[in-house]
Amino acid sequence: MSETLVIVGGDAAGLSAASKAKRADPDREVIVFERGEWVSYAACGMPYYVKGEVEELDDLVAVVPETFRDQRGIDLRTGHEVFAVDPDTQTVSVDGPDERFEQPYDDLLIATGASAVVPPFDGMALDGVFTMHDMDETAAIDAYIDDKTPQTAAIVGGGYVGVEMAEALTARGLDVSLYEALPRLLQPFGDVVAESVADHLREHGVDLFLDTPVSGFRGDGAVEEVAFAGETNAADIAIVGVGVEPNATLAEGADIELGHTGAIATDEYGQTSADHIYAAGDCAEARHAVTGESAHVPLALTANRSGRAIGQTVTGTPTPVGDIAGTAIVKAFETGAARTGILDEERAREAGFDPVSATITAPTRPHYYPGGADLTVTLVADRESGRLIGGSLVGRDGLKRIDTVATALHAEMTVTELQNADLAYAPPFSPVWDPVLTAAKVLDGQR
Amino acid sequence: MSETLVIVGGDAAGLSAASKAKRADPDREVIVFERGEWVSYAACGMPYYVKGEVEELDDLVAVVPETFRDQRGIDLRTGHEVFAVDPDTQTVSVDGPDERFEQPYDDLLIATGASAVVPPFDGMALDGVFTMHDMDETAAIDAYIDDKTPQTAAIVGGGYVGVEMAEALTARGLDVSLYEALPRLLQPFGDVVAESVADHLREHGVDLFLDTPVSGFRGDGAVEEVAFAGETNAADIAIVGVGVEPNATLAEGADIELGHTGAIATDEYGQTSADHIYAAGDCAEARHAVTGESAHVPLALTANRSGRAIGQTVTGTPTPVGDIAGTAIVKAFETGAARTGILDEERAREAGFDPVSATITAPTRPHYYPGGADLTVTLVADRESGRLIGGSLVGRDGLKRIDTVATALHAEMTVTELQNADLAYAPPFSPVWDPVLTAAKVLDGQR
Repeated sequence: MSETLVIVGGDAAGLSAASKAKRADPDREVIVFERGEWVSYAACGMPYYVKGEVEELDDLVAVVPETFRDQRGIDLRTGHEVFAVDPDTQTVSVDGPDERFEQPYDDLLIATGASAVVPPFDGMALDGVFTMHDMDETAAIDAYIDDKTPQTAAIVGGGYVGVEMAEALTARGLDVSLYEALPRLLQPFGDVVAESVADHLREHGVDLFLDTPVSGFRGDGAVEEVAFAGETNAADIAIVGVGVEPNATLAEGADIELGHTGAIATDEYGQTSADHIYAAGDCAEARHAVTGESAHVPLALTANRSGRAIGQTVTGTPTPVGDIAGTAIVKAFETGAARTGILDEERAREAGFDPVSATITAPTRPHYYPGGADLTVTLVADRESGRLIGGSLVGRDGLKRIDTVATALHAEMTVTELQNADLAYAPPFSPVWDPVLTAAKVLDGQR
Repeated sequence: MSETLVIVGGDAAGLSAASKAKRADPDREVIVFERGEWVSYAACGMPYYVKGEVEELDDLVAVVPETFRDQRGIDLRTGHEVFAVDPDTQTVSVDGPDERFEQPYDDLLIATGASAVVPPFDGMALDGVFTMHDMDETAAIDAYIDDKTPQTAAIVGGGYVGVEMAEALTARGLDVSLYEALPRLLQPFGDVVAESVADHLREHGVDLFLDTPVSGFRGDGAVEEVAFAGETNAADIAIVGVGVEPNATLAEGADIELGHTGAIATDEYGQTSADHIYAAGDCAEARHAVTGESAHVPLALTANRSGRAIGQTVTGTPTPVGDIAGTAIVKAFETGAARTGILDEERAREAGFDPVSATITAPTRPHYYPGGADLTVTLVADRESGRLIGGSLVGRDGLKRIDTVATALHAEMTVTELQNADLAYAPPFSPVWDPVLTAAKVLDGQR
């Protein structure tokens, strides 16, 4: 009898694993339980649907359920919630649309994702107050704007969602205010990026309230005001994006070990503390390429990659899930920001480094060639060894250069080695010294 | 008495060395002899001046002579040709505008650059036949187009100059034919890139004659025809760009060792076979990061970097000049091509590798987000070790991704390690799997 791979969660990690396992071993029975109706969708594209740049919500679906079922032979069951795992009997308990039942597994992948944090604000239940955690809520935001024609928007949280939704709602014609409890936006990107993006948002008319914890929302049935620090502002719609938390309760209920981040602890093959149980994607930890320690950075590539690796491992080809570098990139109006590795000095010290950093601003093309723009590059290295440990970029052009820095981090290159890398130059693409090289040169000179 | 650094050649390598040496040791006497009048100019920008995208030829000058002289304290002498070096007496012989004289040195840098190959074609001396080796000739091409209003252009050679000038002359309204003796364009970029760029040039009306050696030009005083394989085509102007050769005769005359490429052999600090004599830039060899062997890849970044390193070395901080990876990038109309490392299978085998390659085409952004374009990525690895040894890109967007591949080459990463790199994803910048990662994944799967 063929073995059965059961997967909990039908998005990037779960369906990457399912597809890979089935391709590697077509006889394997692969069952995917998804509690919702949407599968395999690009959550990162949702703000651009609200903005109006993506026409149909369906456009965000990478692969439709029928393809998984009919072409890939995956037993994909939407509307099925797995509510318990028993590692001893190797069984999951499933709440299906018609009945509850037990499903035995030989291997289990927990790919339950993460959820938007719902803060204990007053008025979270008012109409017009949204988090942005799934496709249905995204559709609801879009419909609310169409139906209620709100004039003012309060965005709470200055992370990816906040910054991207500030752009999206401004494009829809709303007056946008953004509230961040910390003194700066985009915390993981460091001061240099945060200040530059803040300036850019202000230039586009976004009213920024930094260092400003929100206490809640007020209104009669629907939101009318956002309350903070004893004041209120008008808000006909509110988007709350104050972070995500891993959906780890299913694993926790089965006595599977969680890491210090609260996400599911895994080894280099994505296996949890329980035999035959793996975890991948936004619910799981991963090893950080710079610190070597466990981290929780819920992003799409990690989910896809670890799911795929686990699909190979369970079908007989042990494949490490790979390290993360915390690489991220975000657009805000005409500017962009990118980061990788460790930028925070305190965190660098905790990981045993003596951080030294340099920031330079240089054009992405020669002064004489049209189309370039200033790019601000920050690089961080360990002073003694010269090892590169992090970097950030902010500017209107050339943001994918962060991949050069990320690759150098994975390879444990020193800043001396990076400044000697033979990067591409021709006037339509770059100055002779790419801004990343210039930053490496400056940093190498001052450590 | 302070030591004297003498530099022969006033472009990227020479003036980078001069500037760095003077900054590191302001007491050092630094004399730069340049036989022409132009110094510190961006040769790679010249086609864009002819195209009309760069307004003034002076715009291509990075730093004017007065700045070197007055602000950096460099004794920069244009119109001075060094015609002999005596390593025993540590003296160079100089032909200046007024007199010939001997100049003693403590350290000498030969940064004499490269020259356009002048092939033994009939009619090379006709008016309207140009190579594209310096600023004066670029000005002459521009003036010839303005004054003589040529209708047809023959470009001989399908390398960088040929491809860039095909774009430039088409933009100026000429009917352009391009002749390449080899069966493909852009030889160092490999077949995949060559075919794609050839198609794109044809779409823009360039008449391509591949596998077609030119025998010469005909005309009465000025060029009227290009002759090849017993045929002729009309050509009111001709650009000959069939490669460059290192200016090594000065070094050769001083019994300084040349490498197998014909360029000046150097060690890891840029020193030649003679004591106190260095060589850098287009006249010198460099060590290839992939093969570890000497190579001659005359490009601007190498010149700048090696010059700078030698400026540090001679002032007391020994600094390796760094390896090259043969990274290059070129634009042709709306498309671009980039390459790094070893793409040629035969060359890979000579260097001891068993090459295996994969080519994929993938969009630079998700299908649902506007502005992406297909990018074709080729990666080459050693089958047994998995070590990445080369890569190329061709497409309309995202060409600087070649830097990710180049960085991986320098770090001696395997294709498995590269496919696990945490590169940046967000819809405005990249699909979840960056095309470079997809190529690495496919290549890793098939080796």
